[in-house]
Amino acid sequence: MTTPIAILGATGYTALELFRILARHPHARATCATSRFDAGKPVCAVHPSLRGRIDLAFSNPDFGEIASRAEVAFLCLPHAASAEAAMALLERGMKVVDLSADYRLGDGATYRQWYGHDHPDAARLGTVPYGLPELFRDSIRGATLVANPGCYPTASTLALAPLLRAGLIAGPMIIDAKSGVSGAGRTPGMTTHFTEANEGLSPYKTGAHRHGPEIDRALSMACQRQTHVLFSPHLVPMDRGICATCYAPRARALTTADALNCLREAYAGEPFIRVVDDLPSTKHTLGTNFCDVTARVIDDTVVAIGCLDNLVKGASGQAVQNLNLVMGWDETAGLMA
Amino acid sequence: MTTPIAILGATGYTALELFRILARHPHARATCATSRFDAGKPVCAVHPSLRGRIDLAFSNPDFGEIASRAEVAFLCLPHAASAEAAMALLERGMKVVDLSADYRLGDGATYRQWYGHDHPDAARLGTVPYGLPELFRDSIRGATLVANPGCYPTASTLALAPLLRAGLIAGPMIIDAKSGVSGAGRTPGMTTHFTEANEGLSPYKTGAHRHGPEIDRALSMACQRQTHVLFSPHLVPMDRGICATCYAPRARALTTADALNCLREAYAGEPFIRVVDDLPSTKHTLGTNFCDVTARVIDDTVVAIGCLDNLVKGASGQAVQNLNLVMGWDETAGLMA
Amino acid sequence: MTTPIAILGATGYTALELFRILARHPHARATCATSRFDAGKPVCAVHPSLRGRIDLAFSNPDFGEIASRAEVAFLCLPHAASAEAAMALLERGMKVVDLSADYRLGDGATYRQWYGHDHPDAARLGTVPYGLPELFRDSIRGATLVANPGCYPTASTLALAPLLRAGLIAGPMIIDAKSGVSGAGRTPGMTTHFTEANEGLSPYKTGAHRHGPEIDRALSMACQRQTHVLFSPHLVPMDRGICATCYAPRARALTTADALNCLREAYAGEPFIRVVDDLPSTKHTLGTNFCDVTARVIDDTVVAIGCLDNLVKGASGQAVQNLNLVMGWDETAGLMA
Amino acid sequence: MTTPIAILGATGYTALELFRILARHPHARATCATSRFDAGKPVCAVHPSLRGRIDLAFSNPDFGEIASRAEVAFLCLPHAASAEAAMALLERGMKVVDLSADYRLGDGATYRQWYGHDHPDAARLGTVPYGLPELFRDSIRGATLVANPGCYPTASTLALAPLLRAGLIAGPMIIDAKSGVSGAGRTPGMTTHFTEANEGLSPYKTGAHRHGPEIDRALSMACQRQTHVLFSPHLVPMDRGICATCYAPRARALTTADALNCLREAYAGEPFIRVVDDLPSTKHTLGTNFCDVTARVIDDTVVAIGCLDNLVKGASGQAVQNLNLVMGWDETAGLMA
Repeated sequence: MTTPIAILGATGYTALELFRILARHPHARATCATSRFDAGKPVCAVHPSLRGRIDLAFSNPDFGEIASRAEVAFLCLPHAASAEAAMALLERGMKVVDLSADYRLGDGATYRQWYGHDHPDAARLGTVPYGLPELFRDSIRGATLVANPGCYPTASTLALAPLLRAGLIAGPMIIDAKSGVSGAGRTPGMTTHFTEANEGLSPYKTGAHRHGPEIDRALSMACQRQTHVLFSPHLVPMDRGICATCYAPRARALTTADALNCLREAYAGEPFIRVVDDLPSTKHTLGTNFCDVTARVIDDTVVAIGCLDNLVKGASGQAVQNLNLVMGWDETAGLMA
Repeated sequence: MTTPIAILGATGYTALELFRILARHPHARATCATSRFDAGKPVCAVHPSLRGRIDLAFSNPDFGEIASRAEVAFLCLPHAASAEAAMALLERGMKVVDLSADYRLGDGATYRQWYGHDHPDAARLGTVPYGLPELFRDSIRGATLVANPGCYPTASTLALAPLLRAGLIAGPMIIDAKSGVSGAGRTPGMTTHFTEANEGLSPYKTGAHRHGPEIDRALSMACQRQTHVLFSPHLVPMDRGICATCYAPRARALTTADALNCLREAYAGEPFIRVVDDLPSTKHTLGTNFCDVTARVIDDTVVAIGCLDNLVKGASGQAVQNLNLVMGWDETAGLMA
Repeated sequence: MTTPIAILGATGYTALELFRILARHPHARATCATSRFDAGKPVCAVHPSLRGRIDLAFSNPDFGEIASRAEVAFLCLPHAASAEAAMALLERGMKVVDLSADYRLGDGATYRQWYGHDHPDAARLGTVPYGLPELFRDSIRGATLVANPGCYPTASTLALAPLLRAGLIAGPMIIDAKSGVSGAGRTPGMTTHFTEANEGLSPYKTGAHRHGPEIDRALSMACQRQTHVLFSPHLVPMDRGICATCYAPRARALTTADALNCLREAYAGEPFIRVVDDLPSTKHTLGTNFCDVTARVIDDTVVAIGCLDNLVKGASGQAVQNLNLVMGWDETAGLMA
Repeated sequence: MTTPIAILGATGYTALELFRILARHPHARATCATSRFDAGKPVCAVHPSLRGRIDLAFSNPDFGEIASRAEVAFLCLPHAASAEAAMALLERGMKVVDLSADYRLGDGATYRQWYGHDHPDAARLGTVPYGLPELFRDSIRGATLVANPGCYPTASTLALAPLLRAGLIAGPMIIDAKSGVSGAGRTPGMTTHFTEANEGLSPYKTGAHRHGPEIDRALSMACQRQTHVLFSPHLVPMDRGICATCYAPRARALTTADALNCLREAYAGEPFIRVVDDLPSTKHTLGTNFCDVTARVIDDTVVAIGCLDNLVKGASGQAVQNLNLVMGWDETAGLMA
């Protein structure tokens, strides 16, 4: 017996990756895929790579019907729409893993500042577990709603949190992050047009990206004190992959070996974190739920680096990791292929 | 004194390439750049690579005003719109190089069949020189309107025409063509979305691409008899470049050396055709107005290959080559950088 | 209990892909990875993407030791070396899937012509099953040695064989094939240097590639009569993926629907062949063991197209499919992730 | 009359770019191209993109012969070999622009520390003008030897120097730089193998790259006081382009407008520096000698960004700019195409 799963907003890349992972998951199966625009079409018509692997059509059911078809929902919806759906589905007894940003921030004011409108479910903000299992596993286990982290915050927080917790680094922290184009989603636009994005590297939203405050909150929760980062993302001409190169002043005398040991101790036994001695590459993580982290101490600065696949550990793989925790299954179920 | 030039529909990639070439042209300068949607904006706001090289704003003038600002117009407009503009500008005494497909076919019926509507200027079809200087130079010199060839037809026709003219090959001909993504233009869409086009190769419009009948006509004119090709294009994950690999039965006993000699004789003295012994690569032609051609005889088949940069020899470079012929300037002016 | 598997020549890309697949295979596990140059190093030091997924070191054992450590061997060795190893391992009672070209051709003379030296085990040529399960499944089941097909021959033969068998097409056939760069292996060289291969498309070995005679033999066996193709490969700037666009004269009156039906009937029930109505893309097969095929009838020509991932269905995935047949396991074991 | 130019070590990418630029230079022409390994071959055999544009063969002449064939030499040699050649050619009365790193550092001890051997011409170190015209034009004009800057140092120094000079920023500075693969040169190797570099982003030599001390010296000279940077480069899957994202604490109250004004004043009238309001992209500089710079003030940090084409403004374009200054020609000669 496998658990029926609904994917809301199932035409994008994170949904595609969820379909892929669920197709090999031992305890779960996709039973409902919603889309307002593609309702009626087979999922494979939109995601041709799934042909022969999935036999499901998009539909546009109301929340009651979704609840009758599935026990857990992954939300791949735009912000605001996602919170509306979460509220409705929780009310109907479903468990929810929200891949949007709606429950990642801690309060309505910050949300309003960065998303430009009031949060539809502001009262719940601050109470929803942040789905970074390596740091907040206990709060995720058995939860009914999980805020699945952003791609950049996952790479950045996993690289920095142990060093910050151990008091090896201090603010101000700078995160220079590089991402493949799939992070921008599946809707065509000028910056993601092939001939615009290919063969060029571009900084964008320097110091003004919504993942900045999310990282601030994640790190603050992880080390139990207010932290602040300068977040500086760049678009890289490749499909997938994030590399977060993080710079922070060392808080005391420190060697590279000390920093690596700190990471190794923090992540001992973690199935999805690989602490590496040599410098990592996003390529080594492609298609996997691994996050590769390392650190260097150079003069007075600690450089902590996290690399991952933005659609797996940075989105859908981590969402399934959270599903596994919510359901009490083996945390790696479906994720080691 | 340089000749003032207008570019109509100046926000796309062929227009960008025209701006680049004209910026270094000894006899011409861009004085008018039209755009319905971006009128008022500096050209550099849409084409940031031109910053510091051009000081012009988009405008949306009527035809009379265009004729008062420029002597020659390059039309980078959608089909039908292009013919409308050509008619109006010719009437006002301008010379016109049309980069659209509007004047490339020989008759209104074929045009209607492939473009789905009546030609606005059908009477002129069949009388307009086809702007492939290496084959039809005499008809282009001093013309007032030139139909600038498509990218695929340029590569394919230059590879095949000499062999066909010399009676070395016979039909049926197959053209398996591969193009970089810029051939699809600057308007974002799903097939040209970075994450869809990158890391994949896709056949498209097999046997049903509008450049098929254009190649038929170009080859028929070149060898003075009716020819027919099977045209089979593919999208390649790169910005620029076309490779047309053409297959035709040999018409008589033939060696590779014979085929190469035929190409060499046909193109002796041509400044923009490089007949190469080794197999060419689109990469060797990037940013240049060269078309590299070669041939092989394998069993009973002749393989003729043409490689070029679809935005230069396949579009704007050839358009300037035609401008040079129209104006009686050195044919290579502005094109050897 | 899982079956122990040896991978000989385990530092290349086909070996890496074998490690990946075996890591999730229910009945097999890699127990021996040979390399002359990297003996002693952990496999992960050469293949960092496998960190955390495999705990094995390269070794350089003699054949007796290999036979004591594993029941089946995958050979990822250069030609000639591969046949030498196959002979030695078969003698020691092992089963062998050979990913080199050594047992793909039918006789020593053809082998010598294309590989430039005598075959070390010429007597066995012509008796070894050709590991294309969709066409030759019965001969593979329970075999002790299987010749795993080349990447281009897999895509080309799967597209053409049903049409040829059904008498819908006749020679001469032209195969215009396009491949990602991983097909050239992991040894650096000028043509696979990033800045040489990127942003360019290049024909290579036109009519002179070793996969030509392999396709001739595969098609001849499949349709029980001598066939001959003109094989024309091209290098595409992407990691993985092959598209074989095949052209053949139709042998009788025929529609596209007829051709598609022929493919559909031939591959009914095949787990790894997807007959598609719309034109396929290599991208839809990435990371999978699927081969997507389609056909079009255009005038008098049939265009048959096959797309696959050259490292999976074109190499290691198919090798595991063959392993499954040799061992009597479910043919899809390990291959549906 | 054009000045004859020699290019030593003429088989690499910087030499190729020099050939391209010189082909359109009004006052200079390449008359000598040296290569130990390719002597005798036409330059076009190694650089096929130059076919039809250059008619020269590689040779391996002694220094006397080089001096008889050319007035100025561009050195594209490995370090140490470059200094040896510079000494010999200067002695014979030639002018030299050295594209290697040999004369970029200020003293023999630093050179030995970073390059692992004694400098062959250590006495000259510290006296050779550093060829960044926008900062050190006066010392370059009429010089006989110029140390052409590295690609990363050009982008980084142009972004930071004006802010540092004006006292708007203070140390410690962090430079997170991203480069296309051509920066690694034309010799194949594992990290630049297509399938290793493509679709991945990798930090490398973090805090340990030889361009670190070069940037330290360039900035120290520019602002007349000792400075120190943490230099952290990354390899990006594209042919060309460098983006240096530089972070420094602001030295006083400051807005983004202040920082932009500082850059604008510093570079007023500079033909090759474009100070841009919006965030730049490496793609906008491809094939040009432009360096696009901008700045942002975010909290207490100034982010200064420089983008350029590493083979043009980051190497050969700047080398020709230096040639123009050395010879007293228009500084932009040959560089505006």
